[in-house]
Amino acid sequence: MSNPITSLFNIKYPIIQAGMVWCSGWRLAAAVSNAGGLGIIGAGSMYPAVLREHIQKCKEATNQPFAVNVPLLYPNIQEIMDILVEEDIKIVFTSAGNPATWTSFLKDKGMIVVHVIANTKFALKAQQSGVDAIVAEGFEAGGHNGREETTTLCLIPMIKAAVNIPVIAAGGIASGKSMLAAFALGADAVQIGSAFAVAEESSAHPNFKERIISSAEGDTKLRMKKLVPVRLLKNEFADAVAHAEANGASTAELAALLGRARAKLGMFEGDMEEGELEIGQVSAMLNEIKPAATILNEIWEEFLVEKHKLNTLEF
Amino acid sequence: MSNPITSLFNIKYPIIQAGMVWCSGWRLAAAVSNAGGLGIIGAGSMYPAVLREHIQKCKEATNQPFAVNVPLLYPNIQEIMDILVEEDIKIVFTSAGNPATWTSFLKDKGMIVVHVIANTKFALKAQQSGVDAIVAEGFEAGGHNGREETTTLCLIPMIKAAVNIPVIAAGGIASGKSMLAAFALGADAVQIGSAFAVAEESSAHPNFKERIISSAEGDTKLRMKKLVPVRLLKNEFADAVAHAEANGASTAELAALLGRARAKLGMFEGDMEEGELEIGQVSAMLNEIKPAATILNEIWEEFLVEKHKLNTLEF
Repeated sequence: MSNPITSLFNIKYPIIQAGMVWCSGWRLAAAVSNAGGLGIIGAGSMYPAVLREHIQKCKEATNQPFAVNVPLLYPNIQEIMDILVEEDIKIVFTSAGNPATWTSFLKDKGMIVVHVIANTKFALKAQQSGVDAIVAEGFEAGGHNGREETTTLCLIPMIKAAVNIPVIAAGGIASGKSMLAAFALGADAVQIGSAFAVAEESSAHPNFKERIISSAEGDTKLRMKKLVPVRLLKNEFADAVAHAEANGASTAELAALLGRARAKLGMFEGDMEEGELEIGQVSAMLNEIKPAATILNEIWEEFLVEKHKLNTLEF
Repeated sequence: MSNPITSLFNIKYPIIQAGMVWCSGWRLAAAVSNAGGLGIIGAGSMYPAVLREHIQKCKEATNQPFAVNVPLLYPNIQEIMDILVEEDIKIVFTSAGNPATWTSFLKDKGMIVVHVIANTKFALKAQQSGVDAIVAEGFEAGGHNGREETTTLCLIPMIKAAVNIPVIAAGGIASGKSMLAAFALGADAVQIGSAFAVAEESSAHPNFKERIISSAEGDTKLRMKKLVPVRLLKNEFADAVAHAEANGASTAELAALLGRARAKLGMFEGDMEEGELEIGQVSAMLNEIKPAATILNEIWEEFLVEKHKLNTLEF
C-alpha cells in the first residue's frame, strides 16, 4: 500500500477522525486508532491539565499512532505545546491560526505536522511553513469554517492543483461513497468529523448524539459570519442567531448573544435549546450510534465496494 | 452502454449542458448536442417569440436530441408550453416551481420531462408527479439555489437514497474529476453550467466571460436569501447586496435594490459593475474560453483517465 497518508502516519486506512471540541477525547481517539485509522484528541475544549490526562490515557488505550489537534488561537498555547513535547506526541494537527507560528517549533521536535485550511492562500502558507500535509475543509463541515464558503467538491481540486504535499479532504464525508468522491477529486485521505461525533466512544452528551441522528436536511446553517463562521444545528440558540443576523446584528451583538461556554453547554452538558451545537451538514444522513470501529469499517467496506462498482460502469 | 441517462435521452455522453439565462441559446445547445451531450435552450430569459426562434434555429443546427429548460414561475407559462408542443420538443427540463403543475401536460404530449430540485422533499414530489429523471443541484451551483444550502457532496447520496428514477448531479462540476466524484456519489449523469457559460457559443456578453475566467476563490456568494437565493459573482451590485443584507435589509428593500433586468444588464449587455452576474462557485477553476465541443471532450477524456487512476489506487 503506497498511500502518502497511510505511509506518513503509519496507519492502515486513509481515514482520519477529526479533532472536535467536546467530542474527541482519548476514548474516541484510541478507538479509531485501534481500528486502523488515525484518532485525534481535540485539545480545543481542554484545559492543559485535562489535555495531559487525555494524552496519557490514550497512550494506555492504544499502541497505534494517534494525534492531537490544537487550534492555534488557544489562550494557553505555549503551555499546550510544551505538553505535546513532554508527552512525546508524534503527530500534531494545527488549525484556526497562522501555520508559520508553530510549525518549525513542532518540526524541530521531530513531530509530523498537519495544518487545517479552507482556501488556497492558507494551503500555500502551510506548505511554505513546512507542514507534512494539509486538511482541506469544505463549507459543509461542522464547527468553524472558511469565509470563502468553498464546498469540498470545489475545494479539493483547487488545493491539489496548488500544493505538492498530501491533501486530506474534510467536510461532507461520512460514507464510503463520499470518501470515494473525495479520492476522485484527488484527495489522499479523508478526515471525518460528524460520523465519529455520534460514535459510542465520543464524549458528546447523549442528548447531542440523539439530536444529530434525528436531524434532517437543512437543519444546519453556517452562522456568525461577522464573528467566526460556525456551522450550527438548528435549536433555540441557532434561531436567535439567525434572527439577529437577519436584522443586521453587529459583531459585538453576536458576541454578546454567543456569550461564554455555549458549546460546552450544548455539546457536553446536553442543553439542546440554549447550547451551541456544532455539526456538519452530513448529519442529515446519520441515523445510528455505533462503535467507532464499526463506523470506520463500514465506511472502508463501502469505499471498496463503490470503487469496484464505479470501475465496472460501462462507457 | 447502459447508462440510464444516455439511454433516456439517446445521447452519447452522460453530460448535460445546463439551461442558463442569457447564456444558453440555440448556438450553445446545438454545439453541445452535436458534440454528443445534451444541449439545453434556457427559456428563462426569452420572450415566447424569441424562444420559438431559438428552437427553430437549434433544429436547423443539429439533428441530435436537445432540450428546453422552463422555469415554472415564468409569467407567460401557458404560451411557452404551447410553443414546446407546437415545435415538437422531445425533452423538457422544468425548474423553479411545483413539478405537479405541468408534468402530466408535457408527459401526455409524449415528452421526456426532467425537474430540477435541491432537496429530498421536491425530489419525491417530482418523482410522484411522473418525471423521468431529476437534476439535483447543490449549494455551489450558479443562479437560483436551494434554501437548505445542501452541497452537491451531501445532496446526491441523499437524493439517490430517496428516489428510484435517474439522478443528474449539478453544482460544482466542471472537470472530469468532479464528474467522477458525482458518479462516485451515485449520480447517473452530470449537468454542467458555468463551464459552458464561458464556451465560445455561449450568448453571455464577452465581458462576462472574461470576468468569469479571471474570477478567484471566494468571489461568488449566495445572496438574496430573503428573496430568492442566488449565487452572485462579486461586483459593485453584489457588494451593495452584501452590505444591505449585513444591515438587515428587508425583502422589499432587497427587491428594490435588485430592480428589473439586472441579470440581462450584466450577463447579456456586459455591465460588469451594475449588472447581476449569476455563476457557480467552480468559476474560480475556469480560465479559458473554448468551443463547447472542446469543453465537453476534455471533461469526458479526463473522466476516463481519472476513473482508471482511481481504480488502480492500491489498497
